[in-house]
Formats: sequence, structure tokens, C-alpha cells
Amino acid sequence: MSQAQLIAIDAALRGGQREPQTLAEQRAGFEEFAARPVERDVTVDEVLLGGVPALRLTPPGAARTALLYLHGGGYVIGSARSGAGLATALARRANAVAYSLDYRLAPEHPFPAAAEDGLAAYRALLADGHEPGEIVLAGDSAGGGLALALLLAARDAGLPQPAAVVVMSPWGDLTLSGESLRTKEADDAIFDAADVAEYAARYLGDHDPADPLASPVLADLDGLPPLLVQVGTNEVLLDDATRLAARAAAAHVAVTLEVVARAPHVFQHFAGRLDEADLAIDRAGCFLAGHLATSPAGRQRTPAR
Amino acid sequence: MSQAQLIAIDAALRGGQREPQTLAEQRAGFEEFAARPVERDVTVDEVLLGGVPALRLTPPGAARTALLYLHGGGYVIGSARSGAGLATALARRANAVAYSLDYRLAPEHPFPAAAEDGLAAYRALLADGHEPGEIVLAGDSAGGGLALALLLAARDAGLPQPAAVVVMSPWGDLTLSGESLRTKEADDAIFDAADVAEYAARYLGDHDPADPLASPVLADLDGLPPLLVQVGTNEVLLDDATRLAARAAAAHVAVTLEVVARAPHVFQHFAGRLDEADLAIDRAGCFLAGHLATSPAGRQRTPAR
Repeated sequence: MSQAQLIAIDAALRGGQREPQTLAEQRAGFEEFAARPVERDVTVDEVLLGGVPALRLTPPGAARTALLYLHGGGYVIGSARSGAGLATALARRANAVAYSLDYRLAPEHPFPAAAEDGLAAYRALLADGHEPGEIVLAGDSAGGGLALALLLAARDAGLPQPAAVVVMSPWGDLTLSGESLRTKEADDAIFDAADVAEYAARYLGDHDPADPLASPVLADLDGLPPLLVQVGTNEVLLDDATRLAARAAAAHVAVTLEVVARAPHVFQHFAGRLDEADLAIDRAGCFLAGHLATSPAGRQRTPAR
Repeated sequence: MSQAQLIAIDAALRGGQREPQTLAEQRAGFEEFAARPVERDVTVDEVLLGGVPALRLTPPGAARTALLYLHGGGYVIGSARSGAGLATALARRANAVAYSLDYRLAPEHPFPAAAEDGLAAYRALLADGHEPGEIVLAGDSAGGGLALALLLAARDAGLPQPAAVVVMSPWGDLTLSGESLRTKEADDAIFDAADVAEYAARYLGDHDPADPLASPVLADLDGLPPLLVQVGTNEVLLDDATRLAARAAAAHVAVTLEVVARAPHVFQHFAGRLDEADLAIDRAGCFLAGHLATSPAGRQRTPAR
């Protein structure tokens, strides 16, 4: 049990400054929190995927399978480098090469720039000769919503689906209709409903928040590949995760929802300091590896539905 | 992938007779379906737990940990013997002794007879010297709802909670408010909404279906132990599972929801003929074993919350 770890992390999160910050300060602060040096046994290359910059992270002995990773940050902050830690951790366990994508950020590049970049990167992996069954997706927070949007865009463009997808504390309802936005405000040490609304406004401008590519949790999820959703109960975004699981199930998608009691938003960032984080990353990596493995030698096409 | 297995099972289920049956015929038919000879390496004893008959199923090398198993059958059909197969399968993987409970059935013994028997059995395990952390619960269909009712009754009686609980295709909303009762009728080869309503009427008589012990999915789930929910997408009861997971998460319960695409109600009964069934039982047994193991030597009290 890691009750003491969770309490310490909650206190540390609440101890941070909550004064208004400029966008540049927000971005710098998040990089400081999330972007750590990549482990020395991982080969790091700056590449372009469909014209979008990405960090290619190759753990020792990785197969030719590819993990496309979409970082979090409300579509406004974060970078390939802030996502590199989780991307590498998952890729190592899935024996894959990770691509942590530097999709364009709002407000400079509002909706649908991020979704366009995600789809362009996925198309590039397919064009590069990867079979769909050799590709998996993962993302956290807004990156989780973006991963789902990418799957919907791929489906609607007639592209095949990848082998599986993992989303951690996904943000996938930009209409902000989840009850937990209100009921979990006191429990959430990171966001309140106003913070989430501000991120949505910066990304969407005056675009309809109910657009499926902005709010995939509310969309028809028919045809999506096996999906793992991880979330903590101390999150205003909890209902995005639980409703995603329910809607995926309604659409006959194979879905697993893992809810960690009293854990904060994207608790996986606390790997090494929180047992649940390490265990969740292990399970997510195992889930991706298992679905990559079902494609014999990575050569069998995964039907889109 | 086991798409062919799922299609064959669906066809077999739809091929069965759907003509009206007497209660005796229903009970005999379910026994024939679900009650198979217990494997020869398992010791079977007929015992009483708090005055309630049970089959004690002891796999070779079982520890003194106890699995209390609550069979399915809409509170109307089924028996300790029809639950023995799944109880044994879980107990073997959790290294526990299983007790498959012969709780009283409706309409002869309507609500709350089953819940009373479940609580009496749990009290007996505690009185027998089992620490709460040495006990786990599991159940399928109505037995899943009954397991949850038992946990609520134990909590409200000031008893400690067991180490963990597994529910397979739980039926836990006897108000019948789940959307899937309508939206999944064509997909469900076993039940339609009218069948479910008939079971509810037989169990409840004129008792309020919203009673938390009848509809634990709608209750305050605060204080429940770690919970694993398994369900298929071809079920009119799908929403009982997804809403249970969402409500448990809202109450800070550690919960995992596993949704198997295109699987029927309590698909675990098809172990040996359906890969997903064997895998789900493996995961459920592993989940129970993991939570029993967190209690060092089974001696540490699990706090109720």
C-alpha cells in the first residue's frame, strides 16, 4: 500500500504556486516538472513524422513495432520532451520504438491543428511500411483525448486501426459535461473546473466543443482497437475516463478501465515515488506488448472492426 | 483472437429453447448447464456457514484464505453446485479455500433472504478466526449483485471489509434503469429486458427495487474494498457493470473494469471453449491472489476504508 506516498504527493502538489502565470511560465514550469533526461541506454533521435517533429526513443533491443505517444498539457503546454519519460517507459515494456510527437500547440495553433498532426504522424508510420498491427498509440491527459481523436479520424478516413491504445487520465470531453468537474474539485490537487475550461477555450477558440475530434469521449467509438484507460479518483477529469469506458463498451470495443484510489491526474508521472505509478506503467506496457504480440511476427493486418 | 469461438457460442445459446418453462424446469436446466463434476484433486465437503449450507472446495495446497462465492441465477435458480466450477477455478488461482454458498432462493424466500444468508456466511468466516484480509468475495450475475449487497450490509453493520471482490456480469440494478436493457437486446443471446424484469419481480415481490441491498449499483459505495468487474458487450446487463465501475470510482474505490468485446453474459462459464473465458478467470484469480498477498501472512487487518 502506498497511502503515505499518495499523501506526500498530494501535499507537494498543493504546495505549488497557484498564482496566475504567463503562458511562457506555464510551459517552462511543466517542462521542469515532466521533462527529465532520457535514460542513457535509450537512443534519442530528432525526426519528422509526416512533417511533424518527434523524438524517436529506441530502447535497447526494441523490435520494429512503433509506439506513437501524445503528451499531455491541455493542448497548450508540454512537448515531445515532456512526454518522453512515459513514452520510453511504455516502449521499453512493449519492446517498441517510441515516437513522442511535438504536435502543434494552442493558442498559436488552435483546433484541429493537434489532431491533424497526430493523423499525419500515424499516416507516416503506415507509409513507412509499418503494418497497423505493429503500431500502438498512447497518450496522457489531452494527449489521451488526442489519441482517441486520431483513431476516429483514421477510421473515418478509411485507414486501418492500430493494434491497441493506452490513455492515462484522458481529457476527452471539451464540452465539460462530466459531473466530476464539480464533485472532485476538492480532491483534485492540480486542476479545478475553471482551469479545464480555460484550456478548452484556448484550444477551441469559437469551434464547437462537441466536435468528435475535440470530444471523442462523446463520439461513436465503433471500430476502435482494444483500449486501456487508467485514471485516479482524485481527478476532476475522472468522468471522462469512466464515460469513455462505458461508451467504448456500448460500441463493442474491448476496454479495460483501471481506477486507482486517491491518485492524482496522470499519477504515472510519479513513477519511482509512487508504487501505483510503477504498477500502472507495467500493466500498460504489458497490455501494449500483448496486443502487439497477437499479430504473428507483426505481419497480420488488424481489421478495422 | 477467438471470434470463431464467440460466434459458435452465440449460435449455441440462440439455438436453445425459449419456450416458457416451469420454475423446476428452469432450475434443472441451469444445473445441467452450469453444474459439472468438481475436479478430482479438489476436496469437497458439505458445510454450514452461519447456518447456511455451502460446498467447501479445497484445491491442493490451499492456504487458510477463504473465497466466499455467490452463484448466479437471478436470485431464483442456481445452487452451490452450479457455482462450484467458477468458485474452484478462482480459488485454485488465489490459493484459497472456496465456499460456494447455497443461499435461499426466491420466490420461496424473497428479498432480503439471499442478502441475509450472504452476511451470515461472511460473519461465520470472521467468527471462525479468519482475518478480513484473509477473505475475498466473488460472484456472477445476481451473485455479483449479492456480493456487493453483502459488502454494503457488512459496512453498515460495522464489520470490516474483506481483502477484495470480483464480480462477473453483475446484476446490481433491480430498478432496471440501465440503457443496455434496451440497446443490447438484439446482441444478448440469453436474456431480454422482460426476462430480467421477471427475475426482479420474483425476488422483490412488492419490495422497493431501489433498496441498496437489491440495487447496490445505485448505492453509495464508499468504503468498499478493491473491486474487479468483468462483463461482455453482448449483455443487456452491460450498464450494470459500467455504472458500478463509475460509481465505485466516484466513491474512491479502487476498481478495474474489464469489458470483453462480443462476449455473452457470464462468459467465464465457457472456460475451455473460449479463450477470453480462461484469460478472464486467470486475471480474476491473479487479482484476488494479489490482494490476499498484500496482507503479510494474512494477518494484517484491512481497514474498512
